[in-house]
Amino acid sequence: MKIAILPGDGIGPEIVEQAVRVLDVLDEKFEMETAPVGGAGYEAHGHPLPEGTLKLAKEADAVLFGAVGDWKYDKLDRPLRPEQAILGLRKNLNLFANLRPAILYPELAGASTLKPEVVSGLDILIIRELTGDIYFGQPRGVRTAPDGAFKGEREGFDTMRYAEPEIRRIAHVAFQAARKRGKRLTSVDKANVLETFQFWKDIVTDVHKEYQDVALDHMYVDNAAMQLVRAPKKFDVIVTGNMFGDILSDAAAMLTGSIGMLPSASLDANNKGLYEPSHGSAPDIAGKGVANPLATILSAAMMLRFSLNKAEQADRIEAAVKAVLAQGLRTPDIYEEGTTKVGTVEMGDAVVQAL
Amino acid sequence: MKIAILPGDGIGPEIVEQAVRVLDVLDEKFEMETAPVGGAGYEAHGHPLPEGTLKLAKEADAVLFGAVGDWKYDKLDRPLRPEQAILGLRKNLNLFANLRPAILYPELAGASTLKPEVVSGLDILIIRELTGDIYFGQPRGVRTAPDGAFKGEREGFDTMRYAEPEIRRIAHVAFQAARKRGKRLTSVDKANVLETFQFWKDIVTDVHKEYQDVALDHMYVDNAAMQLVRAPKKFDVIVTGNMFGDILSDAAAMLTGSIGMLPSASLDANNKGLYEPSHGSAPDIAGKGVANPLATILSAAMMLRFSLNKAEQADRIEAAVKAVLAQGLRTPDIYEEGTTKVGTVEMGDAVVQAL
Ligand SMILES: CC(C)[C@H](C(=O)O)[C@@H](O)C(=O)O
Ligand SMILES: CC(C)[C@H](C(=O)O)[C@@H](O)C(=O)O
Repeated sequence: MKIAILPGDGIGPEIVEQAVRVLDVLDEKFEMETAPVGGAGYEAHGHPLPEGTLKLAKEADAVLFGAVGDWKYDKLDRPLRPEQAILGLRKNLNLFANLRPAILYPELAGASTLKPEVVSGLDILIIRELTGDIYFGQPRGVRTAPDGAFKGEREGFDTMRYAEPEIRRIAHVAFQAARKRGKRLTSVDKANVLETFQFWKDIVTDVHKEYQDVALDHMYVDNAAMQLVRAPKKFDVIVTGNMFGDILSDAAAMLTGSIGMLPSASLDANNKGLYEPSHGSAPDIAGKGVANPLATILSAAMMLRFSLNKAEQADRIEAAVKAVLAQGLRTPDIYEEGTTKVGTVEMGDAVVQAL
Repeated sequence: MKIAILPGDGIGPEIVEQAVRVLDVLDEKFEMETAPVGGAGYEAHGHPLPEGTLKLAKEADAVLFGAVGDWKYDKLDRPLRPEQAILGLRKNLNLFANLRPAILYPELAGASTLKPEVVSGLDILIIRELTGDIYFGQPRGVRTAPDGAFKGEREGFDTMRYAEPEIRRIAHVAFQAARKRGKRLTSVDKANVLETFQFWKDIVTDVHKEYQDVALDHMYVDNAAMQLVRAPKKFDVIVTGNMFGDILSDAAAMLTGSIGMLPSASLDANNKGLYEPSHGSAPDIAGKGVANPLATILSAAMMLRFSLNKAEQADRIEAAVKAVLAQGLRTPDIYEEGTTKVGTVEMGDAVVQAL
């Protein structure tokens, strides 16, 4: 089986390197091939998602992705900016289901800005639709307003759209995930204002008929943002659209205070997937050897479980990560008094040792 | 000067009653006229925003609004549901600037789910554009997809739109508000994905030329949701669109743990405004005499300051609210051990007394 390794920019290469080391010490051997993406793709081939990189990602059985983006590319035209690579990969590979766990490791409870009793034991899963919604909807652009109160003025516009099959397939993913966990699913919408999300709510309600063992509730996105702050542990699985999911999954990750620990998976209909840490490229600390590689290592574990059918190896990696936390090893982002501060490579060493 | 009083549903009537009592004991006397809105409008006249109510709101110098909504109206067609009243008032009265302070009163620091050091002294102002964006953009609806990967399938769709004058006017409101406070403005967008918000960012940047004494920064909405959880005190004034503002202002309110304390103002170009508590209609506790009237009383204070030009009276009300908190009086939503639990009317009594 073949894994495409796309390190990207900023801390991407350093953290991916540690995840590759971890994969290398497993009994199972994988073919891995590396290609540039994001700013690195632009530097190498003039495009954030070079043709060769896309071809490799398509051929591979799974993609391990670091992070993209750096301030130095801010002035480029939008189609050339690093984040277009991730949007292009999602769309071209049909990675419609983004799974983002927000888990608080007991050892890291102190890192959260929330009170321990509010977040300790937090374990929720946000499922974000990833190839539809206003992210990709046409038409979009800047034009002269054709109608409305500002007719004749310049305006920016985008289109939010969700078709029935798109909603059905993400709903199925969400109900199935909920079935394997606490059997509770919250569908987040804005049905009181948006036609798209009234439609979303109706379809999710319909799909629910096939999953009567799962309890479904519907929540408006503004209320969901509040409930995540007020009582996040009340959630089990959340499913929502691309735009709301972008916002809520980042808020949920930050509740844990340790976004450097959180992996993510983006899957297609056949469980081929792209795996990446939930955090960004952090250009401010790139090359300093202080980045936390654990989110990427845990992303590799998700990859083994979902795309490569090696659940046992995934379990081993997750156990190894728990072991190094229990040993008290911490990168600076999760460091607290009384623990041992280590760098990116030492953290990788420790996981490899624990394996 | 004339105030339209729109109590609405759920706890709306009880809390508005206390705000009216507070207005009644001021030296200044106001003409007040009450009309039904939301579910109450539907019950009385078959529409959440009856013609007479809209007429009154248009004639008046300011509108004091309670809250709308109740589960029993969930099955009505969307145009008849209570929340359409608030959307209709915003649009018909051109209330494009929504000001939502998120303030943590020192006495209530314990009510927050965040650690005291993260939120104590919190005082941020969110300015949400309120009459544009995907809330009102045409076209919208459910149709057969005319193009794209799901051509021929049923789909829901909405249009996000912002015209240049709409962005300019809200940017001016925001820069002026920042100038009166900490002189820092964060414009929240999603310019890396949405054409509308790249356009928004460009226009806000242009308006900034007229306010060089205010520091402007731009932040993506997903990052803003994270930073609100991580370090909310770093913000001074935030300006954003209608949809993002809906989500972020509720999240920010919940950071304080005392959403029952937070007022809001929605203003037109001439500072005519609608004033309402940031919380909802809470039908579960309606009629029980336990609702917190302080957010509505503080909304009345905002009304005096912004629309009725009575800043001194506004100051007096705000001081009275601080005094009752200092006395240790608390409605159940903000109750903590060692304080005195009171009901809605007693809380109103106490504010009236303090005045
Ligand atoms: C970089 C950006 C386009 C992207 C998104 O908005 O989806 C990111 O925020 C994410 O969540 O992966
Ligand atoms: C009731 C609803 C339409 C409304 C909105 O989304 O604007 C509410 O959430 C608010 O923020 O005032």
